[in-house]
Parts: sequence; structure tokens; C-alpha cells
Amino acid sequence: MTGTLLRSDHGRPVAPSEGVLRPLGLDNVRIADGFWADRQTLNAEKLIEHCEYWVERAGWMGNFDAAREGRLPAAHTGRSFADSDVYKLLEAMAWEIGRTGDEAMNRRLQAIVERIAPVQHPDGYLNTYFGRPGQALRYSDLEWGHELYCYGHLIQAAIARGRTAGDDLLVDIGRRAADHVCNTFGVGGIEGVCGHPEIEVALVEFARFTGDDKYLKQAQLFIERRGHHTLADIEFGRDYFQDETPLRDTDIMSGHAVRALYLAAGGVDLAVETHDHDLFRALETQVAKTVAKRTYLTGGMGAHHEGESFGQDFELPPDRSYSESCAGVGAVMVSFRLLLATGDSQYADQIERTLFNVIAGSPSAEGTSFFYTNTLHQRVPGTIPPVDEASPRASSSLRAPWFEVSCCPTNVARTFATLGTYLATSSPDGLQIHQYATADVRGQIEGGTVAVRIETAYPLEGTVRVIITETIDTEWDLAIRVPGWSTKARLLFEGEEEVQVTPGTAIIRRQFAVGDTLELRLDVSPRFTFPDPRIDAVRGSVAVEAGPIVLCVESVDLPPGLSVNDVRLDVGRKPEVRDGRTTVSLLPAKFQSSAWPYPPSPEDLAGGAAFEVPLTPYHHRGNRGPSTMRVWIPCA
Amino acid sequence: MTGTLLRSDHGRPVAPSEGVLRPLGLDNVRIADGFWADRQTLNAEKLIEHCEYWVERAGWMGNFDAAREGRLPAAHTGRSFADSDVYKLLEAMAWEIGRTGDEAMNRRLQAIVERIAPVQHPDGYLNTYFGRPGQALRYSDLEWGHELYCYGHLIQAAIARGRTAGDDLLVDIGRRAADHVCNTFGVGGIEGVCGHPEIEVALVEFARFTGDDKYLKQAQLFIERRGHHTLADIEFGRDYFQDETPLRDTDIMSGHAVRALYLAAGGVDLAVETHDHDLFRALETQVAKTVAKRTYLTGGMGAHHEGESFGQDFELPPDRSYSESCAGVGAVMVSFRLLLATGDSQYADQIERTLFNVIAGSPSAEGTSFFYTNTLHQRVPGTIPPVDEASPRASSSLRAPWFEVSCCPTNVARTFATLGTYLATSSPDGLQIHQYATADVRGQIEGGTVAVRIETAYPLEGTVRVIITETIDTEWDLAIRVPGWSTKARLLFEGEEEVQVTPGTAIIRRQFAVGDTLELRLDVSPRFTFPDPRIDAVRGSVAVEAGPIVLCVESVDLPPGLSVNDVRLDVGRKPEVRDGRTTVSLLPAKFQSSAWPYPPSPEDLAGGAAFEVPLTPYHHRGNRGPSTMRVWIPCA
Repeated sequence: MTGTLLRSDHGRPVAPSEGVLRPLGLDNVRIADGFWADRQTLNAEKLIEHCEYWVERAGWMGNFDAAREGRLPAAHTGRSFADSDVYKLLEAMAWEIGRTGDEAMNRRLQAIVERIAPVQHPDGYLNTYFGRPGQALRYSDLEWGHELYCYGHLIQAAIARGRTAGDDLLVDIGRRAADHVCNTFGVGGIEGVCGHPEIEVALVEFARFTGDDKYLKQAQLFIERRGHHTLADIEFGRDYFQDETPLRDTDIMSGHAVRALYLAAGGVDLAVETHDHDLFRALETQVAKTVAKRTYLTGGMGAHHEGESFGQDFELPPDRSYSESCAGVGAVMVSFRLLLATGDSQYADQIERTLFNVIAGSPSAEGTSFFYTNTLHQRVPGTIPPVDEASPRASSSLRAPWFEVSCCPTNVARTFATLGTYLATSSPDGLQIHQYATADVRGQIEGGTVAVRIETAYPLEGTVRVIITETIDTEWDLAIRVPGWSTKARLLFEGEEEVQVTPGTAIIRRQFAVGDTLELRLDVSPRFTFPDPRIDAVRGSVAVEAGPIVLCVESVDLPPGLSVNDVRLDVGRKPEVRDGRTTVSLLPAKFQSSAWPYPPSPEDLAGGAAFEVPLTPYHHRGNRGPSTMRVWIPCA
Repeated sequence: MTGTLLRSDHGRPVAPSEGVLRPLGLDNVRIADGFWADRQTLNAEKLIEHCEYWVERAGWMGNFDAAREGRLPAAHTGRSFADSDVYKLLEAMAWEIGRTGDEAMNRRLQAIVERIAPVQHPDGYLNTYFGRPGQALRYSDLEWGHELYCYGHLIQAAIARGRTAGDDLLVDIGRRAADHVCNTFGVGGIEGVCGHPEIEVALVEFARFTGDDKYLKQAQLFIERRGHHTLADIEFGRDYFQDETPLRDTDIMSGHAVRALYLAAGGVDLAVETHDHDLFRALETQVAKTVAKRTYLTGGMGAHHEGESFGQDFELPPDRSYSESCAGVGAVMVSFRLLLATGDSQYADQIERTLFNVIAGSPSAEGTSFFYTNTLHQRVPGTIPPVDEASPRASSSLRAPWFEVSCCPTNVARTFATLGTYLATSSPDGLQIHQYATADVRGQIEGGTVAVRIETAYPLEGTVRVIITETIDTEWDLAIRVPGWSTKARLLFEGEEEVQVTPGTAIIRRQFAVGDTLELRLDVSPRFTFPDPRIDAVRGSVAVEAGPIVLCVESVDLPPGLSVNDVRLDVGRKPEVRDGRTTVSLLPAKFQSSAWPYPPSPEDLAGGAAFEVPLTPYHHRGNRGPSTMRVWIPCA
């Protein structure tokens, strides 16, 4: 252990110095039961250990051992950014240890950190891929080298550790790396940026964590340098890494989706800390336009496999949606920061959508395999990836245990560990409930500490009860989000008349007593959703949602021999819940087989008898073996 | 000049030893006027010289100079396959010199060959990217090194030269390379294949050219080795380079489109020469399924930018169609070989479609810029690429003068130079007219030489007149293709009653006299075409074709402020020709702007007043500056 104890910020992953809402830390929100508790249990019991196993097996940890033992570059395995997945894993473990106090995991974390520490150079430089004889020079490939990206994840891990366990070796490594970045890339240093944003969001948070503005200034330098052709041109164009246009002049997200989202997250943090209203407004617009024109129904982002990038406006092909799991993580990061700054419930809507439909669906039910990309239409059943091989391909049709580019599993792990933070916030006026899960929430408001118990079977059922468990002697606001998808929401406060509430934020201001109960009643019965007619790729199709859950049809639920490409949906019959599953009426489609698929008149699709088919929550797809799947079903 | 004079094969690019139809050489078909004559003139006067300029400017020729002067690897520019574009250019020049007798071009060709010759090693090895101190070892990267691919194009250039000018230095270089390949990769040698097929089709033709079966056997070795995981796995999977499944077991084309098509062309050649009926039938099936399920309306192939590859069945997104110009060339190569072997007019239909809509549209009207990919929907106008820079990106929205991967311009050049060969064939029974252009055609049949003059304004007009100009004293068959798209074709032989003819081959058998005239009357008036309902990406849309020409709407023809994304087509009003342009009735589409593009009910698109808009031939798109464009127009 080195240095002085740093501020803990109560286990908050994000701790802005100001904003409409204040985040609650992991010690103030405890998810007790239900959908998200299940994911946290899966993370604690399976997913993190699975990642630990694979960073060893794939050799990412071995790279640090090889560095200590002078076996680099010969013994290096993986890509230039392999170090970062160890750091993301450490971040996940740190939050998880903070959440649960898992002593065994704590020892494992410390063992990993001790293998990394000796690899850090005296000047703070730390990377297994660059800088040794036989390796490329430090910072000789800012476009693709990912050195600063790796530091970003290292620093985020250090923050997680510092805010849960206090100062220790990992915090020290992170601080030395952060100092090295400032010394090397500060004024008078290398006037470069990293090809993959991430250092920015990490440095702003490190400034919040340490109270030292030099990290904030360095983040500012990186963000202001970017967008001026600071990086070399590449085949995808500089837009790929957001170096074509400065962030504050960017109208809508483009290029590599994860890069764009990490950069935007850092941009919001910077704007908040520096009171840069122009930058903040630019980011609000950028995000609003991206959500309105370049986002999948699932909340997924990224329409191109090539360049893992956003497409043009309304270019949202379901069968080639890239919608990387990591882009889901990035989108939640951005939305959460904007929610804190503005209090606008639309951002919590996006968080909900993305958590339920992108991030929750990445891991298998067993927590030992993952979707990297999240397609909305699986045309062929695909094959089961080997359980003991890293997938070289990001777009397999079924979940794979690991990837040669292994960013997603560790990103899911760190998100699951910090789920609590997205549930609720506080402000001087009261508490705000953003997400619905059975949980205990406590917060400081003006006048003291208040606490509530949330009880719900959401998203299966639409009733959310908020029970006051601790209160103060004066009035305060209990606020609860009413989701954007909700059309018939009602709010009930005991002894008072039930009221209709519309999407946004419903606030009850009372002098509450312990036991007082607020009940939000949402209609989570299944409903049809249609695409904006500008989304060419799903014209004439319909999707089914239930509450925040996007549903899909899988061929394992169809009569034998039919694929999801052979059916049409009868929109005349509303979806219904039968035996706990949402069911729709489908018709078999008849196709003429022909040598040339462009006939002179529209082909008649009149099918046979309609049949009822149960749908599957999109996040649960692919858990029953190879299957074709689609979210958007052509209308009969 | 070295060696003995080789067989000329009368200037035939493809000369199978057997088949239902026999190709005619460039000396037997002369295109005199019209659409394809214009392209041949453009090629002769602009396009080839443009390629000559750019192989110098980009440094591809300089690589050979640097090799001679011992300046490699330091002075190398371009990718590992840069040599191949010089060879494709030489092939284009050789055919063009054979076609026109252009003496100046002949001197330029010889000057290029003389700069290449000294780079060839005594053992026949020739490559500027491998094998020198400081470069990777010969054949150390068969997956991506392209050494055998480069030889393939060198050998095709040598064949072109040999069949037009007789044996010379280029032929000698090609033969030494071919011998080197047999010595190195034959039985007992390296048991590898090239990551990019091309050597196979070249070696079979070289066997035909020289009469030496050892080249055929080597091609057979390459084709039989492939598909057994002979190459290392890569991120895209071995399917990318057709090494996942043997060619004879492949059901439908997949992976990198140009690779799959070049391999299939070599496979057809091999099957014909070795009487391998199983392989031949497998390829017929493969091609038929690929045309029926994985081909764009334009004849274009390749639905993914990532991996430049085929998509799944009916996955044919118009806005992300890769449809590389080179894949068009490869598709024509395959179709022509199958046409010769079977006489089936469907293959000539595909050649026509691909020539008019993919290959003709790659170069600009000036012949100095090119489409590399051929999208069917351009969502944004794009920007004009600089005229003096090689484009790093293959998918620019407007034609670029050159590319860092410069395969397409030289491929178009060699195809234009050999267009005559696709027009007609002979058989012992008579002549077969496959494509329509004003041209003179002469062929040997049983009993002597016959010749015809074709006169037509096709594709603008549908009348094709075939006039006998030389005949024999016995009956023979004059056969003419009736296109698959044609519904109201009529055939008229002078003095006889007009007859209706259906798609396929119409044959008139007579004892013809000079001056006898056959007239085919095709209806080239514009017509609607609809997509197979399994093509999800263009559901609810319609295209317009006129004869073999696919049309598109460009925003430069729309009222100011409208993009092609803002209109709907009124299918109740048939397309009409007005002032020489096909015109359709469009309606402006009204969209509701919303923060989330997935409403609970379908949005009403009811627009304002209909307006008439002229369409543009797809091959002529992008010649009037930045514009949005679409082939498939949503129906009102």
C-alpha cells in the first residue's frame, strides 16, 4: 500500500462535481431480487471468473509475465490492446468486491495487480506491446496502438479500486500512468491523441477522484486536439476515430461506434467540469440525433460491420446490425452522464432499453459465452462455436466463450457490477427512481437521509411499489420515471386517488412517513411497434415489445422446417400472453422459386392457415441452440 | 523475341478444347458502332492511357525499376499485389493492340515489358514485394501475399500477347513464371494454394495456349487442394478465400466475391478440359443458385463491405451493396465459360446484365475515374474525390481516378478490349448471336466460312437486324438469343410471317443468300420490376428497367431540396419515355420528426401532388456531380 487514502466517493463510478442529479454509490443502492439481481449473481458467480480464466488462457496475463521475465516481444499474444481487457476485468472485480466484500475475489485481484506492477516503467509507462527492443517505439502508432486507450481502462480500474477499497497498489499504478500521460502528452509534449478514445473519460474521472485538475486539463487537451486531422488518414477515413470534425462541431455520431460513444462520455464529463455549455449543448444535440436516426429498436448502435461504425441516417439493416455489446456499454455511459447533468428522463429510457436489450443479452444464461455483435435478424441457424476456442470472428451467430478481440465480456462484467448505480439518484429535493428493480435505495437530501425499498416483478409485471423506509421531518420529493414507451401508466399513493401519468418524471412531494407506499402501474402487455418509414431495411415489417423488452421470433419455436424468413405476421391480431409467453399469429409465406429473383409483377404471398407462435425476449435469444431469429417480422 | 511462335487461337481470350459453342476471336468480331463501340473507343483513347499514367504515378511500375536498381524493399509502394495491376494493364493493351493494331500502344507495351523482364529471377520467380533481403520470404504468406495471384494476371497478359502478336518477351516471361509455379507448387513441392484465386484460370488457359498439359495439371492441383483448410484461418474465416469447402462440394458462392468468381471461372475451364462432369455440374448449380439468391438486379455480386463478400441468401442491401466492379468482370468470365460449354442463353443474359449495369458504369463518361463498388442506393450526395489522389476508400460516393487497391480500372480496361468476344460464337451448325451491337461477325462452320452484319441502335431501340454477308451453299443455323427479360419479342425473316419468340435461343435454319436479313424486335420500353419478397432490404419497393438497362433516380433530377429518400413511386402510372428519357410519377413523402423512430402505429406517408421525374441509366449515374441515387424506389 502506498500513498494516502484517497476519497472514496461512496463507490460511485461517476461523480460529477455538479449536475441536476447526484449519483448514488454502490453502498447506497442494493439490488435485492429480480432480473438485474440475477445478472449480478451471474456476474459474481460465473462471468467474472470466466473472464479471469480467459485472460490467462488467451495469454493476456501472460504478456505481463513475459514482460517481467524479459520474454517480449517473442512471447506476446493477442492484439495491441490485449492489456486493456485485464484492466477492464480489474475494474469489474474492484466494483464487485466493493459491492459484495468478496474476500476471495479481493485476493485474486491483488494477485493480478502484483503481476502487473513490475511491468510499469519508472516513468509510469505501462504496455506489453510497445517500447522494448524488437517492439515498435512507444507512441509510434497512435492511430492503432491503443496505448492511451489501455491507460484509460487502467485508470478506470484504479478509480474503482480507490472508491471501494481506498488507496492501494492498483490505485498507485493508475496514478503513475495518469501522471505519465500528463507528462508525455501535456503542453509541450506529444501533440497527439489516441486512435481509440477512452483516456478522456478516464482522466476526467481521475480528476474528480483525486481532486487534481491537471488530469482534467489533460482530458481537455485530448478532446480539443481531436477532430483536426491530428491522426493519420486511414482506409476507413479519419471519421472512423472521430478525427475528421471536432467534437463540439459534430452534428451526429459517426465512425466507429464504441470510439464515438466513449469520446462523447468523456466530452460530457469535461463539459460539466469546465462549465463548457457550448460543448454540452453540442453533445446533447449529437446524442438526440443519434438516438432519433441511428439507433436500433434495441438501443443498439453501429450499423456497419466494416469499421464497426454508424451508418447514415436511417440506415439500420437488421441483418447486418453490428450493435456491438461494447457500444451498448458506451451508450449507457453517455446516457447516464446526461441524465445526471440534466435530469431528463429520456436518458433513463435509453439506459433501460440498452440494458435490457443489448447488454443483458450479450452473455448466455450460463454467463460463459457472449454475443459481441447483436444482430436483429439471424438468417441462418449458424453453428455452435467451440467452448474452448477464442472466436476469431466477432459476428458468429451464437455466443462464443471468448474473442481474439475480447472487449465485450469484460465490459459486460464491469457494467453488471455497477448496475445499482443506474437505479436511482438523489438531489437536495429528494430521491429519483430511474430503473425498476427490487432494491434498497438510500440517499442524502437536504435535511437528512432518506431511504426507500422498491418492490417489483418488473419487467414481467408492470407494478412498481416504492416504500418509504427512512425519512425526515420535512417534505421531500419522491420522483419516479414514467417510461417513454408507456401509454397507460397510473400512479397511486396510498389513501389518494389514482392518477394517470404520462412519460417523463412523476413527482410526489410529501412529508412522508415510514411505510408510505407509492405505486406505479405500467402496462407491460405486449404491443406492436412500427419502424419510421425512412428505415428502408425494415419497411413493411413490425416488431413486438412488452414493456422495455424487445421480442423476437426464433425458428426453434416454429413448426419444423420453417425459418423465420418463411413467415409473415398478421397485424390484425394483437399479440397476447399465453402461458407466460407473448404469442403472435403468423402465416406461412409462399415463395415461387425462380432462376432470377426480380419478377415483373409483385409475387403473391398468400399463405396457408395462420398459426400461433410464442416470441422470445431478444436478450434471451440464442440460448436454445442454433436458430434463425428476427425482431422485425414482415407483415402479411 | 525468344522461343518458337505459339498458336495464336485467333485472338481468343478463352479457347476451350471442346464445348457446345466455340468462341470467336477478336479478328472475327468487330464492333462498329453504338454503345459498346463507344466504350471500346473510350478504352482506346482514354482509359488505358489513364491506367498507364496511374501505374507510373502510384509507383506500381516504379517498384519494378526499384527492383532492378536494388532499391527494394525501401522504395516499394503499394500493397503486396501492386504488380498485378501492371499485368492486367498489359493484358488490356495486348488485346487492344491485337484489336486495333495501335503501333504507338505496342511500343509502350514493349517498354513496360522491358522494365519488368530483368526483375524476373533465373528460376522464373517474379515479384517486387517478396524474397529480397529485408522483405518477407517467398511464399511465406500464401494467405495474403498474392504472389500466385500476380502470376495469374501475368500469365493472362502473356496469353493475350501470344494470341495477338505471337511469341515475344512478355510471352516468355509468362512461360517462365508458369514453369516456376509448376516446379514450386507441383507434386513434391509446396502443397499450398494462393489466398486469392486467379492462377487457376490462367494456368488452364496457358495449357490451352501452349498445348502443354502440365499447366492444366498444376491448375487441377490448386483447385483440388483448396477447400481443405490448406490456408491458415483468418478473422473473416477460411470461407473468405474459399478454403472452407472444396469447390466441387460448394453449393452456392460465398466469401470474397471476386475470389469466388475467379475460382469458379478456373473451375469451369478445368472441368471442361478434364471432362470432370461432377465438377462441372457442381459449378452449374453453384452459379444458378448464386444468380437466383445472391445477385443484385444489376448483375452485381457481393453484399458485404466487410470481407468484400457475398451475403446470405436474399441478403441484398441496396445501400451497402458492395458489388465490386471486379466481381462484375469475374461474373462475366464465369458466365461466358458456361455459355461456351452449354450453349444456354441464360448465361448470355447474365453477361448482358452485368456488362450494361456493372462494368459499363464503373468508368465515368470521360474514362478517367471509376466506381470500385457499385451501390444501388446512395443516401447522401457525397463529395467529389480529388482528381490527383488515389482514393484510400473503395466506397466513395463518386468515381475516383485511382485507388490504393487499384484492381478495378485495369479490369475494366481488359474487359472493354475483349468485348467483341462476347457478341457471337460459332458451332459446326452455324453462328450464334448472343449480344446486340452493330458489328461484323465471321465464323467457320461445317462447310465453310459464314459472316453476318449486325445493325442495331440497341439498347435504345429494340430492333436488331442480322444481314448475311457471306454464306455457303448448304443450310446452316443462324441463332439469336431472345433475352430473359423480354416478354413480347418477335422474329421476322424476310418474306416470311413474323413469329413471336420466347426467351431462349431462336434459330433460323436456311440455305441463306447474301443479303438475307433476320430481324429481332424486342420491346425495350420501360417496365416495372419487383423484388422477390425474400429480399428484405427492398420490400415494398419497385425498380424500373428498359431492355437490359437498370434505371435509377438521382436527386439532381428532383425538385430542389428533395433527396431520393423523400419520394415514393406511384406504381399506378406506368413509366413512359419522354424526350428520350424514361419518366415516372413520384410523390413527396411526409415524415414526422420524432425523438425515437419506432412509433406504436404505422406513420401516414400521404404526400402532396405527384410530379414527373426522369430516370437515369444506372451505368450513367454519378456523372453530374454529387447526388443521392436509388434503384429501388419505395412504392406509394
